[in-house]
Amino acid sequence: MSAATDGKLTYASAGVDIEAGNEAVRRIKALVETTRRPEQLDGLGGFAGLMGLPSGLREPILVSCTDGVGTKLLVAIALDRHDSVGIDLVAMNINDLLCTGAQPLFLLDYIATGRLEPGKIEQLVAGVVAGCRQSGCALLGGETAELPGMYAEGHYDLAATAVGVVERDRIWGPQRSAAGDQVLALPSSGLHSNGYSLARKALLSPDHGALDLGDPLPNRRPEDPASVGDALLEPTRIYEPAFAALRALDGDPVHAAAHITGGGLIENPPRALAEGLAMEIDLSRVEQPAILRAIAACGVPREEMLRTFNCGIGMLLIVDPSRVDEVLAACDEAGQPAIPVGHVYAQANPNDPRVRIL
Amino acid sequence: MSAATDGKLTYASAGVDIEAGNEAVRRIKALVETTRRPEQLDGLGGFAGLMGLPSGLREPILVSCTDGVGTKLLVAIALDRHDSVGIDLVAMNINDLLCTGAQPLFLLDYIATGRLEPGKIEQLVAGVVAGCRQSGCALLGGETAELPGMYAEGHYDLAATAVGVVERDRIWGPQRSAAGDQVLALPSSGLHSNGYSLARKALLSPDHGALDLGDPLPNRRPEDPASVGDALLEPTRIYEPAFAALRALDGDPVHAAAHITGGGLIENPPRALAEGLAMEIDLSRVEQPAILRAIAACGVPREEMLRTFNCGIGMLLIVDPSRVDEVLAACDEAGQPAIPVGHVYAQANPNDPRVRIL
Repeated sequence: MSAATDGKLTYASAGVDIEAGNEAVRRIKALVETTRRPEQLDGLGGFAGLMGLPSGLREPILVSCTDGVGTKLLVAIALDRHDSVGIDLVAMNINDLLCTGAQPLFLLDYIATGRLEPGKIEQLVAGVVAGCRQSGCALLGGETAELPGMYAEGHYDLAATAVGVVERDRIWGPQRSAAGDQVLALPSSGLHSNGYSLARKALLSPDHGALDLGDPLPNRRPEDPASVGDALLEPTRIYEPAFAALRALDGDPVHAAAHITGGGLIENPPRALAEGLAMEIDLSRVEQPAILRAIAACGVPREEMLRTFNCGIGMLLIVDPSRVDEVLAACDEAGQPAIPVGHVYAQANPNDPRVRIL
Repeated sequence: MSAATDGKLTYASAGVDIEAGNEAVRRIKALVETTRRPEQLDGLGGFAGLMGLPSGLREPILVSCTDGVGTKLLVAIALDRHDSVGIDLVAMNINDLLCTGAQPLFLLDYIATGRLEPGKIEQLVAGVVAGCRQSGCALLGGETAELPGMYAEGHYDLAATAVGVVERDRIWGPQRSAAGDQVLALPSSGLHSNGYSLARKALLSPDHGALDLGDPLPNRRPEDPASVGDALLEPTRIYEPAFAALRALDGDPVHAAAHITGGGLIENPPRALAEGLAMEIDLSRVEQPAILRAIAACGVPREEMLRTFNCGIGMLLIVDPSRVDEVLAACDEAGQPAIPVGHVYAQANPNDPRVRIL
């Protein structure tokens, strides 16, 4: 806002800085360009993004989901590090979308803040672009909103929507699951983007862990993040590399998948199961990330850990039992090895739990 | 949060109320169901929404955009009336999408708040559902996020993404515009969802209009909203009825359209024009909504009005000059009459303004 506009009734004087907005747009344009897909159309006006469908689909079904990053953003804001939460934003959407067997096509992001700082917007979008590149999807559009009076100083929120496409007769989901299917886990990189309100309370509140974000991560191994803050900001893993390899297998040996998101290992696994089925998960086969061990050590009960956090499992795959080796090999080759953790069985009684965790 | 969980390290004690979330989901489920489209698939797991394409498209192009409602939300919050801003949310997205000639297919919404109040969420979603019904699109998914510490008490933010589809050789846009095209205006219902930071400052600040939201709207006619608050909350008009009629005309007499959104009558009209073209708009042909007259009367200069607000024009249509009568008739029959306001001409000099407003 220039001094000349102070006191006058202009948009700038009302707290909306159009020049800062234009500067932010300039900075992100080149970044966004790196996510282009061949099906994308442009030069057709700026009101919406346009994208053709991949060729060769007989009966394309569009798949779409929307999500945000949640209070993980408060950690990014506290540390003034904004270059990785965009990856989380993409991951939360793409990992949901992948569960249907769809290939990601494009994503649109929404960034809202009280005062538009072009350098911060550039960091946020750089993360979104990195996530889109990991997911093979185009960043087709977005909105950066300056909303004075709606966000506290330095605060912002992020949301996004992903769109993908799947052949109608190849949709994965609970309708394909069957008793006897094997359950494989793709390890998480840490907390991903769920449970941060509880994680922050457990680790940071003076009544519990009383840690600072800058403190060394308790009981860390050499490969773990150095500090509590680093561990909390570890980006959510995007599973598109493994899923691209799995989609390429003939006959869809993966029947369904469950992204372990809000609701943890209690609420998400049943979303991949047909009625009357349950699954057993041997959690001892999965190494717990150091940040999760630190949270548990602050006194969060095991039941609450299971219900809130991913407990080391970012994604579960429900797999044809005769093709487990092939699925394991595909994940290995994609650089995202999976771990056999359990199996699907018929419930003896409809009121029995849908997930049995060992 | 039950008293029994206070002081313990649970998700509820960290400010996240899972039961309130589930209650909100129950309330909105029946509402959302009323937006179903026949192409929609379900029973395939809850990680994402699935939608087929309308039949008969030879080369479908997906069209997508994302937007929020901006600081109009602060008016809804101040008046504790949350049942219409969902219409604004849908309108801001669908009106952008319509400019490409696409038919709307689906929308996903994102609602974020500091503390989840199921009754308020229900009001918000009721508005989104009403907007989706006006737009003929399904509410395919959404996210309601409870983010303690990120929003002030009682505050929330809304964002959405719309997806539509258009036949590749029928995409509207600047590439179709030509010198001699006629310009028609679809009247706005008021401010729509842009310029609220300036509008609130002009009308409400003690240094300027010094009005209250409950005050009668100055110089109102019988058909105008009763109070300043009513006028500020007037829902954004959704132009799908007119556009559905226009898409049904043979040979696409509408070449391009410009949604008059942020940037007003200065920045938006050129988005519908090819390079080297400009348009003349005779604003005297369009009645100014009472709320816009009130804002101008508070001392906002004309240039700032033109750059910030829609000035009575919600949408501009760029039309084949030989088919203007047909387009006017289609809009009339759809119940959204258009007004001839100008024409497109070749710029004499590339540095001349792209819009000349009389």
